[in-house]
Amino acid sequence: MSKDKQFVREITPQAEDFSRWYIDVIKKADLMDYSPVRGCIVFKPEGYELWELCQRELDARFKETGHRNAYFPLFIPESFFQKEKEHVEGFNPELPWVTEAGGEKLEERLAIRPTSETVIGHMYSKWIQSYRDLPVLINQWANVVRWEKRTLPFLRTSEFLWQEGHTAHETEAEARQETLQMLEIYRDFVENFLAIPVIVGQKTPSEKFAGAKETYSIEAMMKDGRAVQAGTSHFMGTNFAEAFEIKYLDRDNQLQYAHTTSWGVSTRLIGALIMVHGDDRGLCLPPKVAPTQVIMIPIGPAKTRDQVVARTDELYDVLKKAGIRVRVDDRQDLSPGWKFNEYEMRGVPIRLELGPRDMENGQAVLVSRVTGEKRVVAQDQLVEEVERLLAETHEQMYNNAKAFMEENLKSVDSLDELKASMEQKRGFYLAGWCGSAACEHQVKEESGATSRNIPFEVQEHKSTCLVCGDVAKHTVVFARAY
Amino acid sequence: MSKDKQFVREITPQAEDFSRWYIDVIKKADLMDYSPVRGCIVFKPEGYELWELCQRELDARFKETGHRNAYFPLFIPESFFQKEKEHVEGFNPELPWVTEAGGEKLEERLAIRPTSETVIGHMYSKWIQSYRDLPVLINQWANVVRWEKRTLPFLRTSEFLWQEGHTAHETEAEARQETLQMLEIYRDFVENFLAIPVIVGQKTPSEKFAGAKETYSIEAMMKDGRAVQAGTSHFMGTNFAEAFEIKYLDRDNQLQYAHTTSWGVSTRLIGALIMVHGDDRGLCLPPKVAPTQVIMIPIGPAKTRDQVVARTDELYDVLKKAGIRVRVDDRQDLSPGWKFNEYEMRGVPIRLELGPRDMENGQAVLVSRVTGEKRVVAQDQLVEEVERLLAETHEQMYNNAKAFMEENLKSVDSLDELKASMEQKRGFYLAGWCGSAACEHQVKEESGATSRNIPFEVQEHKSTCLVCGDVAKHTVVFARAY
Ligand SMILES: [Zn+2]
Ligand SMILES: [Zn+2]
Repeated sequence: MSKDKQFVREITPQAEDFSRWYIDVIKKADLMDYSPVRGCIVFKPEGYELWELCQRELDARFKETGHRNAYFPLFIPESFFQKEKEHVEGFNPELPWVTEAGGEKLEERLAIRPTSETVIGHMYSKWIQSYRDLPVLINQWANVVRWEKRTLPFLRTSEFLWQEGHTAHETEAEARQETLQMLEIYRDFVENFLAIPVIVGQKTPSEKFAGAKETYSIEAMMKDGRAVQAGTSHFMGTNFAEAFEIKYLDRDNQLQYAHTTSWGVSTRLIGALIMVHGDDRGLCLPPKVAPTQVIMIPIGPAKTRDQVVARTDELYDVLKKAGIRVRVDDRQDLSPGWKFNEYEMRGVPIRLELGPRDMENGQAVLVSRVTGEKRVVAQDQLVEEVERLLAETHEQMYNNAKAFMEENLKSVDSLDELKASMEQKRGFYLAGWCGSAACEHQVKEESGATSRNIPFEVQEHKSTCLVCGDVAKHTVVFARAY
Repeated sequence: MSKDKQFVREITPQAEDFSRWYIDVIKKADLMDYSPVRGCIVFKPEGYELWELCQRELDARFKETGHRNAYFPLFIPESFFQKEKEHVEGFNPELPWVTEAGGEKLEERLAIRPTSETVIGHMYSKWIQSYRDLPVLINQWANVVRWEKRTLPFLRTSEFLWQEGHTAHETEAEARQETLQMLEIYRDFVENFLAIPVIVGQKTPSEKFAGAKETYSIEAMMKDGRAVQAGTSHFMGTNFAEAFEIKYLDRDNQLQYAHTTSWGVSTRLIGALIMVHGDDRGLCLPPKVAPTQVIMIPIGPAKTRDQVVARTDELYDVLKKAGIRVRVDDRQDLSPGWKFNEYEMRGVPIRLELGPRDMENGQAVLVSRVTGEKRVVAQDQLVEEVERLLAETHEQMYNNAKAFMEENLKSVDSLDELKASMEQKRGFYLAGWCGSAACEHQVKEESGATSRNIPFEVQEHKSTCLVCGDVAKHTVVFARAY
């Protein structure tokens, strides 16, 4: 068996075992490694760089909308969690506790933050006195810990990286506007930067953030039909303000509770990225988040090698100068075929081949990772051609994912229909829901699917509850979720 | 008393009480707040942005020299610390321990990382098999925790933010070269970005990093004559490679230990920045790290106000487009005098005043924070004039700090002389040292000064040990340190 074929065989086909495919791909593409601490992974450079590119893009969008970054402590005193009843119930089971430090037993246990509403609420109560101090628009980039029983690299790890925005406002209307503004920033980022189509909507009460009044989410469909919650934005009302005494003197000199929000996305976006776009050849990275957008591979016989490499380097400079993330692989001990496979597996959007005949013709060959199309382009048009192909690639990837999601988004009328359909092929299921937690719970128990959200936009409003048959209050998306 | 004068009086003069001055300034300039967890601070947006600007600059320099970022777990199993004897002794007293998580007692306690040599060493032992895997050049931006008994905002906090580079190399020579390369990057960054002159040298054995073979540092002098270690770079030899089995097959197929390094700077740079450049009026920020480089303040009577504000906004656009970090303060309820004081206190390098007469003359007034100089400049030369003044300001601030350090760097021949001199005025003391830990220890016991480093360059080589009078092996800088 040739080295090339053997190589490809190391990735389990998606159709055979999607979970194994996922682990094969992230290991083989060198994105992560398991750590000696249960449920914690190491983000290796290839994986971490995906996060860095997400961070840079999101950070700019947060700042454009008036937010500033800050940093709050990792540790949260136990008493803080007691202040908001739902919050403590939601997070207590997942907390790691520091009980000793500096050689002494602590008087009060310290939790490692699972999220920072409590400690930030405490600080905001000190900072906010008057309507003049509002709004407070702060974001934090940080590590958080939730001691998960079942973990999966990127998608569910005990420690993960994220950003958490926390804002406080004078009025409910402003806080609601902020909540939806950030949701829209997430939607736009995930769709237009990561090329992942999402369903935007509101969480049902049983799926909302512990302590929030309302939670909104964007939900993405993986290639196995399961859902990933790709971002959430929470309207807290005055829940945390009441728990932490975030009060201000309003314009009429009356003491009022502030209205707060929080919103976050995490490194689970990396997992979603892989599961939405990857295929049996490996990773497939959308151009905007690809650390390497173009891999240049000089080809041809030994006698023309120096010339070809020299020209490759010149073209590298041209692309680099145009702001394209480009690399050259001119290693001599590896065959072009091996390299082609390697960079396909790593998901590089464009391969550029340059050989002696291309030199003669003033041309180069661009190969698209997503379509496999080969495009012969003029060297003096290289920047434009590469930019065009990158833009096309983004569109194609988004459209492919969108088509897949639409194909696997089905409308069902009953729980039996949902269960039967899920046994055939997993996907998202649009169904009517009466609004009762019991019906929602029954769906989960019997099918394993949870309510993902109540979409803002649906093609069809369902009239009856899929479980009890009563009048539907909402049309809900159900799916198995990561 | 006028509001202006009262305002200034809220900052304790440096000469009266430097420590109080420091706390007054960081609180008043809104850089931080104390948190509910002992020894942990909140980095407020004004303080955090200083760190973001440092990060951006350093990150670019690390990447230029071939390093990539990664992320390793926050938790380190207790057994890992036992593997390197010096390392465990150095860090054990400062560790917080997680003993429970997810509702259960842990079988093995987990430390919160004080630094990541151990867990990274463990991972490198898995990743490095052959000389082809070397060098490994990885950096991590992270929070770390050291449970400190005495804390001081930014300079010594239980949790702080930093970067830690960890590299592994084939040869000792390469590892040594890396160690010194990173030290030079730190020196260049601290001197040319933060305008803080430093003394570059090697730590004595008793002051080196726990587990390192050699530690190098850059040391800066605060305005009270005390030292801040502004960055360190460690040559580990094969110490950690032996402890964690980081071995590779060399070019002759022999198993060898890798040679490793680590290097870091932290948010204590923010503290240094304030203590080196600040004065009785407040913060004084070097232009390259100032979040706001130019504050624009429209002035003059109400009747010309709209015109002046409109022109201010136009000039704002011009400066912003040129990449200058600029803000306008056109609040009407605050007097120009109040604003002048406010932005001086916040350390903004340049104030730009624009009034009706300036409008008529096509001019604007630039006022330098550091010299107080007023400069009338033509509006159509504004970008060039601002850029010139920013560059001059950097030079002036660096030169002022350099002159101060040279003035307060004294040469002493005996411990008595050092003690007498320190009682007069604190500073750095150059003295001969025989190389014995006992003599070094005696200096610390009797004077409170510790050896900062053995400078690479000294004007004068001392011939005898300041304590025992024996032949000096090294000329050392002693100082009280933060
Ligand atoms: Zn129902
Ligand atoms: Zn001596």
